[in-house]
Amino acid sequence: MVKRVAVVLAGCGVFDGSEIHEASAVLVHLSRSGAEVSIFAPNIDQMHVIDHVKGNPTEEQRNVMVESARLARGNIHDLAELQVNELDAIIFPGGFGVAKNLCSWAVDGNKCTVNDLVKSTLLAFHNAKKPIGLCCISPVLAAKVFPGCEVTVGHDTNSDGRFPDCSTASSIEELGCKHICKNVNEAHVDEKNKIITTCAFMCKAPLHEIFDGVGVMVQEVLKLA
Amino acid sequence: MVKRVAVVLAGCGVFDGSEIHEASAVLVHLSRSGAEVSIFAPNIDQMHVIDHVKGNPTEEQRNVMVESARLARGNIHDLAELQVNELDAIIFPGGFGVAKNLCSWAVDGNKCTVNDLVKSTLLAFHNAKKPIGLCCISPVLAAKVFPGCEVTVGHDTNSDGRFPDCSTASSIEELGCKHICKNVNEAHVDEKNKIITTCAFMCKAPLHEIFDGVGVMVQEVLKLA
Repeated sequence: MVKRVAVVLAGCGVFDGSEIHEASAVLVHLSRSGAEVSIFAPNIDQMHVIDHVKGNPTEEQRNVMVESARLARGNIHDLAELQVNELDAIIFPGGFGVAKNLCSWAVDGNKCTVNDLVKSTLLAFHNAKKPIGLCCISPVLAAKVFPGCEVTVGHDTNSDGRFPDCSTASSIEELGCKHICKNVNEAHVDEKNKIITTCAFMCKAPLHEIFDGVGVMVQEVLKLA
Repeated sequence: MVKRVAVVLAGCGVFDGSEIHEASAVLVHLSRSGAEVSIFAPNIDQMHVIDHVKGNPTEEQRNVMVESARLARGNIHDLAELQVNELDAIIFPGGFGVAKNLCSWAVDGNKCTVNDLVKSTLLAFHNAKKPIGLCCISPVLAAKVFPGCEVTVGHDTNSDGRFPDCSTASSIEELGCKHICKNVNEAHVDEKNKIITTCAFMCKAPLHEIFDGVGVMVQEVLKLA
């Protein structure tokens, strides 16, 4: 049976959208596994647009779905049209867009709100016992929507200099979730909740290590689908 | 010796910039090979901005380098600053941005002009006998700048339905170049000119086949570097 997998994007570009290389890696690994992929994004304005040279917000306004369509080569669907019964699994690549457009973690930390449609989509997959894959900062969505779940965003200390955003782990624990320390080449599987997470660019690792770690997450998602 | 490789981008998104998955694949394969990568783009306006959902131009104006920086995670350089003597090879991913922003092929076909800086950069690598890697539509840059060279953009017929843009091959031959038919998992090496090409998304192939074909091109570039 071909596995039908939804990939949910949050724009196109690490600082205000989906992290491009994580999203591409998810799609390459799904393609190699023969999965049938549908790409979705919420049809909403981005929180803001970041000039990726200067690192500053611009005056522009862009739409999350329209920019995500760049990653989907035009073949994208409004997240509002997603039908859980037509899908076997769902995956959220990372990038600041997840913490800015899909929830407000970038501004509010663990007191953030999650976009209603993103929340109802996550709850629907969870209720249907279908696996949810998340990487980089995306695990905060699970931590917020599923209190008590287990996720990884890498390590909870920066002792080796590879995890500068390690405080995310303690913020997740403050929500009553269990943070599991994992390396970039590993994924954590919360069997009970069918939540699969990997740290990806939360680790300062070479790009091919990110690519391979995302692949581990994708394989674990497909196993549970 | 670590190979120092320039990757030149043309924006961010298949219809008006660099093809995202080709660019990411180039960077993943270079990372795995231990190459030292520097990412460049010309600091110029895009020809236009395409809404990747509707497929139509919008009223917006975007800058090629600023949008390319999304793919580079902010770590990008103005192409005007490129120093050939600090580099061992150069690679151009594909996407319509190559045919719209780096040259005018999308509008003028084989009567196109090539951006002056792109042209002088290509000539400088060629004169220094350093390899030039190109994929998808990017080989038209070589065909225009190096008459008589050998390149592939896939097949010159669409008999199997996988090469809808096969007429590009005959346009290249009209320029006095030799088009070599190759499959998506192959690269052609023009040994004399040190030009390495692969068809990538000129072939309607699954994403992982594109990824692997780009990898073959990258390996051939590194062998000649």
